[in-house]
Amino acid sequence: MTTPSAPARPLRIGMVGYGFMGAAHSHAWRTAHRFFDLPLTPELRTLAGRTESSLLAAAERYGFAQTTTRWQDLLEDPEIDVIDICTPGDTHFEIAMAALAAGKHVLCEKPLANSVEESEQMTAAAIEARAQGVRSICGFSYRRTPALAYARQLVAEGAVGEIRQIRAQYLQDWLSDADAPMTWRLDKEKAGSGALGDIGAHIIDLAQWISGQRISSVSGTLETVVPTRPAAGDLQGLGGKGDTSGERQDVTVDDVALFTGRFESGVLGSFEATRMAQGRKNAMRVEINGSAGAVAFDFERMNELEIYDATTPAGRQGFTRVLTTEPEHPYAANWWPTGHGLGYEHTFTHQIADLVTAIGEGTDPSPSFEEALQVQRVLAAVETSAADGSSWTSTDPQSSTQETSR
Amino acid sequence: MTTPSAPARPLRIGMVGYGFMGAAHSHAWRTAHRFFDLPLTPELRTLAGRTESSLLAAAERYGFAQTTTRWQDLLEDPEIDVIDICTPGDTHFEIAMAALAAGKHVLCEKPLANSVEESEQMTAAAIEARAQGVRSICGFSYRRTPALAYARQLVAEGAVGEIRQIRAQYLQDWLSDADAPMTWRLDKEKAGSGALGDIGAHIIDLAQWISGQRISSVSGTLETVVPTRPAAGDLQGLGGKGDTSGERQDVTVDDVALFTGRFESGVLGSFEATRMAQGRKNAMRVEINGSAGAVAFDFERMNELEIYDATTPAGRQGFTRVLTTEPEHPYAANWWPTGHGLGYEHTFTHQIADLVTAIGEGTDPSPSFEEALQVQRVLAAVETSAADGSSWTSTDPQSSTQETSR
Amino acid sequence: MTTPSAPARPLRIGMVGYGFMGAAHSHAWRTAHRFFDLPLTPELRTLAGRTESSLLAAAERYGFAQTTTRWQDLLEDPEIDVIDICTPGDTHFEIAMAALAAGKHVLCEKPLANSVEESEQMTAAAIEARAQGVRSICGFSYRRTPALAYARQLVAEGAVGEIRQIRAQYLQDWLSDADAPMTWRLDKEKAGSGALGDIGAHIIDLAQWISGQRISSVSGTLETVVPTRPAAGDLQGLGGKGDTSGERQDVTVDDVALFTGRFESGVLGSFEATRMAQGRKNAMRVEINGSAGAVAFDFERMNELEIYDATTPAGRQGFTRVLTTEPEHPYAANWWPTGHGLGYEHTFTHQIADLVTAIGEGTDPSPSFEEALQVQRVLAAVETSAADGSSWTSTDPQSSTQETSR
Amino acid sequence: MTTPSAPARPLRIGMVGYGFMGAAHSHAWRTAHRFFDLPLTPELRTLAGRTESSLLAAAERYGFAQTTTRWQDLLEDPEIDVIDICTPGDTHFEIAMAALAAGKHVLCEKPLANSVEESEQMTAAAIEARAQGVRSICGFSYRRTPALAYARQLVAEGAVGEIRQIRAQYLQDWLSDADAPMTWRLDKEKAGSGALGDIGAHIIDLAQWISGQRISSVSGTLETVVPTRPAAGDLQGLGGKGDTSGERQDVTVDDVALFTGRFESGVLGSFEATRMAQGRKNAMRVEINGSAGAVAFDFERMNELEIYDATTPAGRQGFTRVLTTEPEHPYAANWWPTGHGLGYEHTFTHQIADLVTAIGEGTDPSPSFEEALQVQRVLAAVETSAADGSSWTSTDPQSSTQETSR
Repeated sequence: MTTPSAPARPLRIGMVGYGFMGAAHSHAWRTAHRFFDLPLTPELRTLAGRTESSLLAAAERYGFAQTTTRWQDLLEDPEIDVIDICTPGDTHFEIAMAALAAGKHVLCEKPLANSVEESEQMTAAAIEARAQGVRSICGFSYRRTPALAYARQLVAEGAVGEIRQIRAQYLQDWLSDADAPMTWRLDKEKAGSGALGDIGAHIIDLAQWISGQRISSVSGTLETVVPTRPAAGDLQGLGGKGDTSGERQDVTVDDVALFTGRFESGVLGSFEATRMAQGRKNAMRVEINGSAGAVAFDFERMNELEIYDATTPAGRQGFTRVLTTEPEHPYAANWWPTGHGLGYEHTFTHQIADLVTAIGEGTDPSPSFEEALQVQRVLAAVETSAADGSSWTSTDPQSSTQETSR
Repeated sequence: MTTPSAPARPLRIGMVGYGFMGAAHSHAWRTAHRFFDLPLTPELRTLAGRTESSLLAAAERYGFAQTTTRWQDLLEDPEIDVIDICTPGDTHFEIAMAALAAGKHVLCEKPLANSVEESEQMTAAAIEARAQGVRSICGFSYRRTPALAYARQLVAEGAVGEIRQIRAQYLQDWLSDADAPMTWRLDKEKAGSGALGDIGAHIIDLAQWISGQRISSVSGTLETVVPTRPAAGDLQGLGGKGDTSGERQDVTVDDVALFTGRFESGVLGSFEATRMAQGRKNAMRVEINGSAGAVAFDFERMNELEIYDATTPAGRQGFTRVLTTEPEHPYAANWWPTGHGLGYEHTFTHQIADLVTAIGEGTDPSPSFEEALQVQRVLAAVETSAADGSSWTSTDPQSSTQETSR
Repeated sequence: MTTPSAPARPLRIGMVGYGFMGAAHSHAWRTAHRFFDLPLTPELRTLAGRTESSLLAAAERYGFAQTTTRWQDLLEDPEIDVIDICTPGDTHFEIAMAALAAGKHVLCEKPLANSVEESEQMTAAAIEARAQGVRSICGFSYRRTPALAYARQLVAEGAVGEIRQIRAQYLQDWLSDADAPMTWRLDKEKAGSGALGDIGAHIIDLAQWISGQRISSVSGTLETVVPTRPAAGDLQGLGGKGDTSGERQDVTVDDVALFTGRFESGVLGSFEATRMAQGRKNAMRVEINGSAGAVAFDFERMNELEIYDATTPAGRQGFTRVLTTEPEHPYAANWWPTGHGLGYEHTFTHQIADLVTAIGEGTDPSPSFEEALQVQRVLAAVETSAADGSSWTSTDPQSSTQETSR
Repeated sequence: MTTPSAPARPLRIGMVGYGFMGAAHSHAWRTAHRFFDLPLTPELRTLAGRTESSLLAAAERYGFAQTTTRWQDLLEDPEIDVIDICTPGDTHFEIAMAALAAGKHVLCEKPLANSVEESEQMTAAAIEARAQGVRSICGFSYRRTPALAYARQLVAEGAVGEIRQIRAQYLQDWLSDADAPMTWRLDKEKAGSGALGDIGAHIIDLAQWISGQRISSVSGTLETVVPTRPAAGDLQGLGGKGDTSGERQDVTVDDVALFTGRFESGVLGSFEATRMAQGRKNAMRVEINGSAGAVAFDFERMNELEIYDATTPAGRQGFTRVLTTEPEHPYAANWWPTGHGLGYEHTFTHQIADLVTAIGEGTDPSPSFEEALQVQRVLAAVETSAADGSSWTSTDPQSSTQETSR
């Protein structure tokens, strides 16, 4: 019998929050080094949360060595290298600022914060910390879907030619039922915004990242389709079936966000984020049409990328359904044979693999806080525009006045 | 040998214009009574057009008994019952007004006219003529796609519940190439507008018709992605490969139209009309999401309707791909067995079948000029909004001021 | 006013039978010269059938000038140029033989006949008549689907490389209900065979035509899933709701036909014809996989061809969904703009266009009776194999003994 | 800080083999208890393999505590509870027999063995061991795809009514290139058979499991499309780019397997397993058509099940594309929100979850060795039939003679 040598260099993780995102992140931390060659080996050291009983159960489930109900403990522990922030958006600012100040690497779930102002401070802090070798990343994990990473690569290589149009939708339907109960995601205090920030943020990030262009101005509309909902007992948690009092609470965020964005090059993009699209479960769609081709994606078929090549001989042109499970596709070679698809959680595993590599190699991972701040500015501009009759609103912090369309 | 009796009551057609629409309409006039039981039998009597040589060839090809280069001849011929207007939009007003005044039934291709003002006069004339038993219809033929007619029926029956969102796109790509030559469709004088009026008009009509609601206000953006194009020799025709002078002409219409519309009930709809969506050939898409279900359609698969029924037992819910070739589907029983699809031209044949039935039965066909005028008002409101920084603009002729979002 | 000149050279049609196929054929005869430049102009002269009342109604509906209850009249009429045989398979032999003997061009619906012996005699007669300039064609109309004609062209050009496998299915479900009534199509005397001859014949013809190879031997199984059905009043017609006696009749044909075929080159093909495939309405599917690519088709989406090109750069490979509505696709340029699909009946119109062209130009149209005879031999070999424990059976008439697999 | 209590009851795993299957299995052992409530907690104790250097690297990668180059060590270690056999098929017999004799629970990858005889002995041993509380399972992991497990549930509930037809295909294309090098999977000594045993075994198991019926007889054909391939240096491994000698080796297994199977109820099924289906990467498809509905699946879209319900009101019938990510779907509630898909490896994780539950609860997991033996008998019958001119061959061990079709 032989015993393999212990992993050379551990990377010790402290995580705050243990809901749905905590489960996804901890799976990724446990799994990344099993499929990717990483310079450091993640260790799940401490899980922080508010409620001791459920915290302990989560730590055992996720594989953390210990727990604490004081997230500040993580910062004080010299053994911890990375703070992974999986809490709702209203707490990101405080935790991330403290973590950066403590010299910990930070993985902060999206949205970066619930306001531009907080995001700006966090970004400034991240830039400052970066000079000391402290790494920071915001969790727009969908970028690590192989099909989307490949789409970006194709666009960068010029496969679609000059971009002519961008079309992005994030369609869900879990609020279609007017009697689905209130949750913290419908409470502006906790969630910042509704469909806009929750899922719209993803397609803003993706559209900018894949196209390589920032959105410079927007004209938008927000709508709360169902204005009240049955009261839920506990807005801290993930909701539930609601209480039985018959009381209804006000929904203080949008159910539907629609906006047109103009990108730096002048290209127009159409955006829709909704949790009212009956029948659409997780239809995060991005399409980019250019002078020479197009790419189209729908997360409901996350292992496929549709590619249109206008240079193909006439008669044979059409969208090609590519299964992005080939060795040529980002991340795919580390997994299974051709045609054997990946799932949602792999986006997180890829994010951890890239983050650990960056930490190990001393480079800065992406999406940086600057990139996340830019998303935040677009979100804010949409809210401003919507409140002002859909007038065109700049995303540029230097622009104090609103813009016309061009 | 026995000779079948001649058709009892002929309905004699005079047509103006013989381009692509003339071919589609004449096929429909020849074919409708072969598959539908009609009270009258269409006869292609006279074809009117400008250029005698091509006019004669078209008449022979389409099956008209005679031709004229003076469309006014059609109105003076007491043997002609119906004037079918297949010319570009800038001539609709003059021909339709004269035809109605002459007591002829009128089928006018869409758009009804190139302005709201003309459309209003035409509508007033149609209403007046109606009192004399003169019928009028505007050619929004896509309504007669079985899948879309069935979608309307489902929505009217409550199959989707309360409407929550409407999503309509008309995506084409034939202008993606910046060197595709100029055509009359890119000349504002001839065409009125670009993607907006040419194809956007269809999805506006469909969204209103299927939902049973009018759009009351809009916020929109228009864009000319390729501002100049190689000069074409003859803007009267359907374009061509352009001249070889190397000269470029200004495109005076939009390539892309994006707008958000608010319907009477308050529901929001998103609209996009583009001829820049590389890879999309004729993707006319409509989706309606409601509290109890959804319907979704794409003309690239015109024999299919996707239906989502939220009342299906949990676990079995999803979009059902219905081949709308069953006897239960509008028009389908008159054609082929189950699963044997129809094509584009059938929408015109169905339109003629319905029109001839209405004329024979003395009822008013749909879409009426009033309905077409409402589409025109939406188009105009989008142009006004786009010119005014996407401000919300009412489609109500009584509303002299712009509106905020609600 | 000007009157177009009458068509120069008419081609006068006598048709026998006026059911579903009669409707499809007469539409094609009326329509082909409206969209294709033909050397002759079809005229629907005489319709022959058994039952005078329904015959007259059909003639009026289809546009025939006269009727007769004696199909022999058509042969005696010197004004008639073409005999179009749209009756059930058991009558093809007698009518076609007489028509050829009378020097009439013959369009015979598939299957050519209900037996190989009859088919051989018909083929011999067709070859003999051909020497006199008499043309003959068998109505495997699906060949004229643009996507399938394009598939053949691609294969012939080498786009799939060396063929490795062929896969053909014709899936329908209209007999899934065990209480669907008896029809003539389930009666061996009338129909010859069941799913095998009715729909299996189509995929045999297509697989051979697209691949350019004949099937040389087969191993097959036939199955009657529902052995008895409610009696129908009249087996002559197209069925109906059955009588109400509660009596059941024996189904004497197969519901399901499964066979493996070996092509001349040694390639294996799998074939399935069924009317028991619940949910599949008209899924006529053909897929050819080669060393360099593949093509795949499903008639439920008849305007699409899936093309796989293994020479595409790695990472971009996948099935391309081509809308076969481009000018480069067979027949498509004569119809509508890109993306505007065709329907089932267009296959017949294309068949007539090609037939009329062949007659006008004095060439022999395809599928010839020889080709149809080859299909018949495959059908017969499948029946022989099925009756003999799925033993491998040659389709070669010279082979008196059965074969092993290779 | 608090430390979670250690897992109550460990389940210690010894694994033999560390190729592609070893990676998949070890991921599953590490992951199952993170998402499922299990009575025992797996621990990866010892990994056995032949080549020490790569063995050590694999152990470290997969997370095993120690290694051995003598698999017999695993049986002698009283700390090991389960033997997980991930080696090629020709070694299953020896290892599994010894493991059962040693009183270890056994997870044996499919195929159970390379012959019926070995499978029979293994099954007898498993039955005997079962009496002592020793559990055994064969790794037909695709059963644990949520969509397929749901399909089985629907069929069992009667959702498709009486089964009329079964259609199963496993289409891959990685051998389409005639110059793809030799691998152990193409060597009959190592692999037993080719496409038939490698991938055909999966669809045989699934068709029997979902339908709840065994295949009683078969008529089949096997084909080696590319008979020689460039020599590979090392047939022990997973292949590679081949050596450069230009030498070619004989392929001694089938590339394509086609067969018709008759199930116990008399229902016919068509089966195809191929690694020559250019363009199809991992198209494992199963369709069951019944009197009342149908289910259809394609592993290339593993998160979708197509369901047809013939009892839906006429007009609304069609295949419903169900995303099997709802709480109602097997296994799905333990993962992510609705619409967030799973990947290939989840089938293994589910298999481990079920196996650990069975061991903990003292019940027998499925697929049992009996079930795997039945698959082996079908494989053998196909080989026999193919060698005997596709004659119908019973899968019943008592039947010494061949059968006719029924």
